[in-house]
Amino acid sequence: MPTPVCIIGGTGALGFGLALRLAQSDTEVVIGSRDGGRAEEAAARARALVPGGVFTGLHNSEAAAGAEIAVLTVPFRSQSETLTNLKGTLHDGQLLLDATVPLAAAVSGKATRSLGVWQGSAAQQAQEMVPAGVRVVSALHTISAALLTDLDHRLDEDVLVCGDRREDKARIAELVERIPGLRAVDCGRLEMARIVEQLTPLLISINVRHKTHAGIKITGLGGDDHAGDRPARR
Amino acid sequence: MPTPVCIIGGTGALGFGLALRLAQSDTEVVIGSRDGGRAEEAAARARALVPGGVFTGLHNSEAAAGAEIAVLTVPFRSQSETLTNLKGTLHDGQLLLDATVPLAAAVSGKATRSLGVWQGSAAQQAQEMVPAGVRVVSALHTISAALLTDLDHRLDEDVLVCGDRREDKARIAELVERIPGLRAVDCGRLEMARIVEQLTPLLISINVRHKTHAGIKITGLGGDDHAGDRPARR
Repeated sequence: MPTPVCIIGGTGALGFGLALRLAQSDTEVVIGSRDGGRAEEAAARARALVPGGVFTGLHNSEAAAGAEIAVLTVPFRSQSETLTNLKGTLHDGQLLLDATVPLAAAVSGKATRSLGVWQGSAAQQAQEMVPAGVRVVSALHTISAALLTDLDHRLDEDVLVCGDRREDKARIAELVERIPGLRAVDCGRLEMARIVEQLTPLLISINVRHKTHAGIKITGLGGDDHAGDRPARR
Repeated sequence: MPTPVCIIGGTGALGFGLALRLAQSDTEVVIGSRDGGRAEEAAARARALVPGGVFTGLHNSEAAAGAEIAVLTVPFRSQSETLTNLKGTLHDGQLLLDATVPLAAAVSGKATRSLGVWQGSAAQQAQEMVPAGVRVVSALHTISAALLTDLDHRLDEDVLVCGDRREDKARIAELVERIPGLRAVDCGRLEMARIVEQLTPLLISINVRHKTHAGIKITGLGGDDHAGDRPARR
């Protein structure tokens, strides 16, 4: 069995879509919420959408306690508070996949603009806040929650991954690539999240103009380029 | 005949590659340099590489004077000085395609990091510096100079375009799309250059890890997605 995953903020659009897609790929998912009842409701909805999927709904702190990999998909407005609340729960050896994006929408600004984060990025803020021994990897910023949740949509895009340890990024890449149509691309150290987190407001700006749910692909990595001529990697 | 183009800094790697590719698509190219002699040399080299291509080498200020579209491909270190020198030359009605990227390399920092620009982006700095009536569009940050210059390489990637007027962006899109394999994507207002300029250090970080010349594609715009199933747009 693949490693189970806990999704902190799993009742939100991105977290819920991710839960569905991972369950479709035989991953056991714990949906966390600051409201245990809402987590249970989301798990029930997920079970109805992915028959055979294994979902549990728990309060964030219970959800995070047992997780090897916890995914943080809360809005930026709640990131700091959520991590403060998890200080007694998260522990040495856990991997935190942070998907937080500091959209200016967090302070009633535009979703096509971002906020400056003192540490440089939301992911670096997360790394500063988690207990010692918890490592943060940043990813999933460019994946549309709407497309993740639309299980009839065939995904075909990249997930940009930033982190300070290769082995952590490899584990996150393995997790991401359980979902057909997603390819993980190592973008370098965690500080590169300063750039990757900015891709969300960029894609939102593109979405507004092109009435779509845009994503990103990196060209030049072989396999998926010139997909018209060559067999695709998957 | 397509509108001729002047490339300020056309002796540099990006400008020279762009000159070659545009000439291959029947565009007359004026290569500008702060050294008129070097501009002439570059034009001679370009003629040898693209037989039939029409290249002129001129000092930047002569090159820019007659151009409807001037492309600025100088390093960030030289952007401000170059625009100061062109204050008496650029004039109302011209379009400046700014490709400048504020890499930290400009001040001996890493090419995977960027500098903060007071105006928000190099493109916005350019807009502040040009004479009244000159409009700035930002683009071409994610195109590898090496791949542009390698005329045997088949390009297949997107060019992200930011600007405040739709008609200006449409003209730049037409220019970019003269080059086979490049698709222009409207990313919104000029301020979005704050994000798009950051893609260069991101791609450099990816290049280091993956030993490639990475580029960007936006998914979800139709046509080019799922190129394995559907005919490509071009």
